This record gives sequence, C-alpha cells and structure tokens, in this order.
Amino acid sequence: MSKISDVAALARVSKATASRALSGRGYVSEGTRQRVADAAHELSYVAHSSATSLATGRTHTVGVIMPPVDRWFFSELLAGIQESLFARDYDLSLYGVPEASETRKRLFDSVLPRRGFDGIIAVGIRPSDHELERLQSTGRPLVSVGPYNEGSSAVSIDDTAAARIATEHLIELGHTSIAFIGGAVDGTTASVGDMRRIAGYRSALDAAGLRDHARVVNASPTLSDGYAAAVGLLGDRRHRPTAVVGVCDEAAIGAVIAARRLGIAVPTEFSVVGIDDHQHAELFALTTIRQTPREQGHDAVRLLIEQMNGPDAPVQRIVAASALVVRNSTAVPR
Amino acid sequence: MSKISDVAALARVSKATASRALSGRGYVSEGTRQRVADAAHELSYVAHSSATSLATGRTHTVGVIMPPVDRWFFSELLAGIQESLFARDYDLSLYGVPEASETRKRLFDSVLPRRGFDGIIAVGIRPSDHELERLQSTGRPLVSVGPYNEGSSAVSIDDTAAARIATEHLIELGHTSIAFIGGAVDGTTASVGDMRRIAGYRSALDAAGLRDHARVVNASPTLSDGYAAAVGLLGDRRHRPTAVVGVCDEAAIGAVIAARRLGIAVPTEFSVVGIDDHQHAELFALTTIRQTPREQGHDAVRLLIEQMNGPDAPVQRIVAASALVVRNSTAVPR
Repeated sequence: MSKISDVAALARVSKATASRALSGRGYVSEGTRQRVADAAHELSYVAHSSATSLATGRTHTVGVIMPPVDRWFFSELLAGIQESLFARDYDLSLYGVPEASETRKRLFDSVLPRRGFDGIIAVGIRPSDHELERLQSTGRPLVSVGPYNEGSSAVSIDDTAAARIATEHLIELGHTSIAFIGGAVDGTTASVGDMRRIAGYRSALDAAGLRDHARVVNASPTLSDGYAAAVGLLGDRRHRPTAVVGVCDEAAIGAVIAARRLGIAVPTEFSVVGIDDHQHAELFALTTIRQTPREQGHDAVRLLIEQMNGPDAPVQRIVAASALVVRNSTAVPR
Repeated sequence: MSKISDVAALARVSKATASRALSGRGYVSEGTRQRVADAAHELSYVAHSSATSLATGRTHTVGVIMPPVDRWFFSELLAGIQESLFARDYDLSLYGVPEASETRKRLFDSVLPRRGFDGIIAVGIRPSDHELERLQSTGRPLVSVGPYNEGSSAVSIDDTAAARIATEHLIELGHTSIAFIGGAVDGTTASVGDMRRIAGYRSALDAAGLRDHARVVNASPTLSDGYAAAVGLLGDRRHRPTAVVGVCDEAAIGAVIAARRLGIAVPTEFSVVGIDDHQHAELFALTTIRQTPREQGHDAVRLLIEQMNGPDAPVQRIVAASALVVRNSTAVPR
C-alpha cells in the first residue's frame, strides 16, 4: 500500500502539504491540491481515515439531523450545507428525525452521542431541553437552522418580521379581512417558527386596529393543506376574507389553486401572500417574502466550523436575509 | 471512561451481547437492546468507533450519492434508505452529485475512494463507466436506484413498461393524438430512465398503428417545465393533442395547471397521465402509474447489506412494483 510520503514525492510537495491537500484541513492552492490528488490517484493511495481519526481525535464528519420530508426549504438548505461541507472536505452524516417518539429517543439518547462527529447541524427541528442536553453532553458544537433552542447557535430568518411584513403589505393595499393559513401541524401543535409567524401576523393587525379581524386557520405547511384550508375559507361567502397570508409558499400556492378552482379570481377578488420564494412561486405569480435557505446552509456550516475551531466561542445567532417580493397575487380589494 | 464490560455487567448480559446490542450487528431482542442502551446511557459509555473500525475493518457507514434536487421521488427514496439504515444502526454519509464536472470528477476520483464506507448507494444518477470503475476499485458493494449502469446491482421500476401502460390507457380510451412531455433535461441530453420511458411510449403507439403520431416535447421532469411544454402544445389549436403522457407526475401536474389556465377542461377536452403517484397526484385527480420510492429505498438497503455480507454475491436487479391508478384526469376524447 502506498504511503503519504510516496504521494508527496510524486507530487513534489512536502509530506505536510500532501497531508493538508488530502485532508482538506488548512490552506492549499487549487493547483497543488489537484497535483496531490492526481498523485494519490495514480498510486491508488487511500488514507486510513480511522487511523487518522484515532491520532487527531477528529473525524472530519458533521452530523446533520433533519425531518425526512419533501419540502423545498429543506432540500435547498441541505444542498447549501452539502456544498459548503464538500468544499471543505468534510463528510456529512445524515439522520432523519423519526416521527415515532421511541425512535427519536433512541436517536438522541444513544445513537448521536456515540457517533464521532466534529459537530452537529439540526435543521427544521427544535431539540427539547433534554435532547439539547444529550447533544451538548458530548462537547461537540451544535448549530440549528430554522427553529432553535435558546441554548444553541442558530441561523434563521426573523419569522415574526416576515409574517408582519407580509400582512402589512395586504393592509397597505386596503385589505381589512385577512386570514392566516398554517401554524398547526396536527391541529394542536405548531412549530416555534410557525408560532412566531402567527405572532407577526397578529402584531400587524393589532397595529392597524384590526385585532378583532384576526383569523388563523389550522393547516400543515403543505400545498394540500393550504388548499383544504382555503376551500374552507372561500366556501363561506358571507365571511369570506379578501386576502390570506400563507405560513409558507406551499400553503399559499394551495390557496391560489383553491381560489382558481372555485372560480374566484386572484388577485382581483382574492389576494394571497406567502413566505419563502419557493421554486414555483413565480409560476403562480405569488407575492411572497423571499428567503434563501441555500445561503442559510452555507452560514450554518461557517458558524459550525468557527465553533469547532474555537470550542469556547459563544452561542451566536445569524439572522438570515428576507425581503418582500411583489408579484401578481396581491392587489387592492374590490 | 466506562468499558463495554461495565455496560454488560450493569445490563446483566454477556460482553458479546452488549457489543451486538450497541453495534447493531447481529440479532438482539428489542428488550435486551433497550436494557443495554440504558446501561450505556447510565454509564455515559461511548464506543470508540474509530478503534472499532480499525479492529474490524468495517465502519458501519453507507455512502449515498444523490443529486441535490427538490423532487418527491428523491425525498421519499432517501427517507426509505434512512429508515432501513437507522433500524440496522448504520450511518448514512450523504454526497450531493455536483453539477460542475470538475467537482463531480473530484467526488468520484478522490473523495469517495478515500472514504471508509462499507457500501455505496447511488440514487438517480447513472455512473459513467469510469466512475463505476473508480467506485468498484475500492472493492465495496454498490447498489443503484433508478438509473443504473449494467455493471452494478440496482433497484428500479420497469420504466419502459410504465410509460407503455400509461400510453395504452389513453389509446384504449380512444385517443390517437397523444404527446409525451419530458425526456430531455437541457434539450439535448436525457436520463437513461427517461429514454426508456420515451421508448415505452413509442412502443405503445407503434403497436396501435399510431407510429406517425408520436410527438415528444422536451422538458425537464419539473412542474414548471411541464407547464411550459403544455402551454406550447395547447397554444396551437390546429395541432393540439387530445392527451399527454408526462415523464413524471410533476411534469403531468404542470400540464394540468396549464390546461386549466388556458380554459381547457381536464379531462373532457384534454387527458393527462403521469408516472409516480406523487403526494399531490390526488389533489389534481391525476391518473398515473404508481411507484413507491420509499420501498425502493428499503430494497436498496437490503440488497446492499446482502452484498456487504457476501462480497461475491452476483450483480442483482430488483424490479420495483408499479401499477396504473385511474383518477379523473383521463377520459374518452370528445
């Protein structure tokens, strides 16, 4: 089996440089990295990562915990995390958050603590205090994206502000009867981010003296639940709102589809605004609050690596960018 | 630091049983596994996975290579793979297939061969002969899901049959002008699976004496591309087809949305059939060929583990189940 010194000799660099180039730790120019990679390839050199990890105590692996759902936000975020980790030659070990509480307990209590990660990114879940304690007991840095626990570093948009700005946009157009779709996954519990969005919606109504008009319709953040919620709202002609805020673009797009199917014109008879700027938002001419989860993934990796390099780094929070994008799903009410 | 013998003593099992329970290798009853896990938890026992792996030469990690895209098929498949690996206490190391050819080359030539996987699952990509050779040079089993290279084990539906059955359903209803939407990601290249679907569509037309009516409109397998392709087809009144087959449900749903927006009734004026049974298929009353990617994920893990346990196991192919589901997007043409 070839040794690192063989690779270094063939690539005409020092052993330390060859090691840096192959491990991805420390700076090496792209040209040198390529030369070392070619030499390693030619010699069929394979680093014994277990031996490396025993020697350094680091595994160059980051654990990512994420719900196994088909949502644009998670896909984009994961793509961003992947890009950043791959560029730094870190491995990504992926764990779905199981729905069953027994399995979730096993994940946090015995699986994750035993794995040799250098750090953990929790996406779209809010670890309970007990889960957070288990994760932190291993002494590895943790960064949350989206919902977060106060005790850990996090990247997320300002959910309250996002929903408030979406609602204010409708109020400025002259709407007074504005419903909110979303906020309750099973009709009883809502995610922290969704709760903040409902709070933002309410605060905009309050500020405009419309507190009594607040109306939240339970729906999970999906197209089909947004559709069902909108059918309910629009079916009652006497109490039909003139506008809705969707907890996310999927729910809002569901509302647009429901209105069209019921023969209600968007935006002249019914305005809809979402949060995300989902890949299909443009197709549905959806006015929305844009966020860029791929960049949030990059930010999460950057934050985690800072913490891995300086274990005493304080808990940090990055507020990700968001902005109102006006398309053609919102208009002055008739 | 606690040792495995401490854990075994506390859980009142042999060292071998404690080791099996903690590693997930070999059979242990659920009750025993829980008792050992509790004991390990109480003693803050953490297996030194690097040391274990040096001793056994196995890492209990499976590499998964997958395009970083937001598609129902990939999300479901990944969820299935995750479930099966988690149940067997294997780790999942995830690699996005980079779009840039330089980065893809780095992934296959230097990153993957250096990682200590016990096996690899390639999802939704067809490794080139060179890439396959690089993957196989490490001596680790490989299972593909979806597109595959003839030299490796694979799980996939019979793409040709799926599209043929979808097309035959329309022919049986009396359609003679049937277009196909999909099959070319950038107008020039198509995935192997998509090529097979086009072949299935053509073979159904051939068998019905409709060879000259074949019409394939390039589109990537997405809602927005399906929408754009359908707008093109439906806009030309003189050559408007009475039905389309979508390369997947996303493309087919795009066609349904396009028809509705143009005031063309589905299914009375225009029939649409897809392939997948996507989570939104029911909302759009879409007739489709159902496949279950989550089960394909389970099958892929089972196949891979068989190969990991018997390295000389022959290349195997699992043909996953698919079936026609008739809803309300297809009807007799006017």
